[in-house]
Amino acid sequence: MRTIAILGSTGSIGRQTLEVCAEHPDLFEVYAITANRSADLLIQQARQFKPEVVVIADETYYQQVKDALADLPIKVWAGADALCQVVTAEPIDIVVTAMVGFAGLRPTVEAIKAHKVLALANKETLVVAGQLIMKMCDEYKVPILPVDSEHSAIFQCLENNPIDKLIITASGGPFRTFTMDQMRDVTAAQALKHPNWDMGAKITIDSASMMNKGFEVIEARWLFGMNADQIEVAVHPQSIVHSMVQFADGAVKAQLGCPDMRVPIAYALSYPDRMPSQINAKLRIEDYAHLTFERPDLERFPNLRLAFDALSQGGDRTCVLNAANEVTNEAFRRGQCKFLQMAEVNEKTLAAMPFVAQPSLDDYFAIDAVARVKAKELLGL
Amino acid sequence: MRTIAILGSTGSIGRQTLEVCAEHPDLFEVYAITANRSADLLIQQARQFKPEVVVIADETYYQQVKDALADLPIKVWAGADALCQVVTAEPIDIVVTAMVGFAGLRPTVEAIKAHKVLALANKETLVVAGQLIMKMCDEYKVPILPVDSEHSAIFQCLENNPIDKLIITASGGPFRTFTMDQMRDVTAAQALKHPNWDMGAKITIDSASMMNKGFEVIEARWLFGMNADQIEVAVHPQSIVHSMVQFADGAVKAQLGCPDMRVPIAYALSYPDRMPSQINAKLRIEDYAHLTFERPDLERFPNLRLAFDALSQGGDRTCVLNAANEVTNEAFRRGQCKFLQMAEVNEKTLAAMPFVAQPSLDDYFAIDAVARVKAKELLGL
Repeated sequence: MRTIAILGSTGSIGRQTLEVCAEHPDLFEVYAITANRSADLLIQQARQFKPEVVVIADETYYQQVKDALADLPIKVWAGADALCQVVTAEPIDIVVTAMVGFAGLRPTVEAIKAHKVLALANKETLVVAGQLIMKMCDEYKVPILPVDSEHSAIFQCLENNPIDKLIITASGGPFRTFTMDQMRDVTAAQALKHPNWDMGAKITIDSASMMNKGFEVIEARWLFGMNADQIEVAVHPQSIVHSMVQFADGAVKAQLGCPDMRVPIAYALSYPDRMPSQINAKLRIEDYAHLTFERPDLERFPNLRLAFDALSQGGDRTCVLNAANEVTNEAFRRGQCKFLQMAEVNEKTLAAMPFVAQPSLDDYFAIDAVARVKAKELLGL
Repeated sequence: MRTIAILGSTGSIGRQTLEVCAEHPDLFEVYAITANRSADLLIQQARQFKPEVVVIADETYYQQVKDALADLPIKVWAGADALCQVVTAEPIDIVVTAMVGFAGLRPTVEAIKAHKVLALANKETLVVAGQLIMKMCDEYKVPILPVDSEHSAIFQCLENNPIDKLIITASGGPFRTFTMDQMRDVTAAQALKHPNWDMGAKITIDSASMMNKGFEVIEARWLFGMNADQIEVAVHPQSIVHSMVQFADGAVKAQLGCPDMRVPIAYALSYPDRMPSQINAKLRIEDYAHLTFERPDLERFPNLRLAFDALSQGGDRTCVLNAANEVTNEAFRRGQCKFLQMAEVNEKTLAAMPFVAQPSLDDYFAIDAVARVKAKELLGL
């Protein structure tokens, strides 16, 4: 029996993590669930899974959650500090970091300090502070199990032999075949229609702009100790091959499957075992008669270029890029900026911020805050 | 340093095994090489690799080989018994069984008894007597490392988790898109033009008729302990995905690469390590923009159906099928039978032979001999 805390249980990954736990009640106990503002769903999840603790980060929903669960022996906490505290609870074995954005950094750090195994779905943590997080994991001997389908694919293909190259696949998103002109006027509604994966709004926009793929390159760099030039992106619109690993002898291994996040989630929770599943989608390869691969177009998707550049430059660059992107992504969703403007402002924010070579954890918080102000300023907000 | 014996060093797999050994002289010592009749190439290989022993199976070439190597301290042996004897030599660590057909069975058995690691390229050994061979390997604690690209792919994807299904890929051969009518009159020359792999004549004809894929299904059944209904064949004309494994959680792992037998050969020789290579072809996935998968057509390729049926029936059926096929394959190459007639006679031979449920090793030799006579009779030869 493994005891699980799910940070961000009401989001797409969080909900699917609970589906996996529900299919295997003999293997997993849900100890804690947390949400930012989705109080109704959090209450519903709490009544179903009966965790020890629920945390609602936004304190304005505290009373609502508290009252709704008054008949159950469940602790209800509120606030950002409660998020950091709940992950340290002694019975927890695995912390699933399924919240979105920079907000994942602090609770992840606390979970590492408390020696919890990390099932990492919050890629921004590694984008912002990969070097520092990996050093801490090493120090505290904490394993990181990737939940992102691409990184899970790579993780599943690893063996005790050195890797030459990682090939991260990308669907290319809804605008893969759009011209620059067509991309100029796309709306948030168009960008939110991902061809293959059903995900949260922020990551779906990041997928449309390929910022998400750029972040995955950065994530892979830290998870698997690769250099930027050992990581390739291959556009694969069918999203069946989730990623590939090339070894020194030329052999390539890939992990494939229908687009179903429950497979990588389940693997992270049950690693190194695999659990038989009735709910996971099973691949029938003849149903996917054509699998295609092409080079990504860095002209039309400059965010991917920015990610590779930021990774090569190191220091605080990926933190600045993430901060700018959180601002531009939200602005685009609110109709406050155009699609192509997101990458433009991300790039200008990077140019406007002085380079910090060796940021401390506190530095990251300061840099993130300043970069957000700068990005908003550049957007005229 | 691993000491290698190569049975069938002048064939396609044998030559490529020597290329692998030549690239890594610090890791491999070639102790023995053998050929059936290709005396000139055997002599040339002996002068280059300076093994302890060379064996020429056809005794009529003995004097030629002996004389040509007289200036070197190399033992020259001749005859089928010498093949069985050479594999037992004490210094040998790994025996590569790269000869073609039923003839591989006896030396393979001797190698197992002598506790040599098997790098198995002679699939007919497992087609004929898989149950017996696997039992012997278990008894003598001898590992079998597959050399066939499909089985190497599966072997590379294995992990310590149970397998739901194997998906063996097939190029479909040169007649993949031919109608039944078109297939009626194809010549051996047409069948010998394989679209992707450069192989010996016997296996290339077996590929064209998909008998080879049927044999690979049988081989996989024994190597990986699967049931016939857990093995699927997917026609994949590009020969980039070499095979796939599906686990209980729905995840599929695949091994990919350019069609280059040196990759699986090297993996078998260096397992569990992988050796960096300058000669192995490296896959660039964008160069293979379209990978396609389709169901095999058992109407047009009845040999594949015969193999599945023989496997399900068990006993001596796969031995009979192999014997009939060795006869029909050779007859087709000699222009003594038509392409579609091969499978017809294979099927009739199976029908004509009484079922033997638990053959001994000696029984296999007798059944093989009788089935050959029967197949020749059915061909009117």
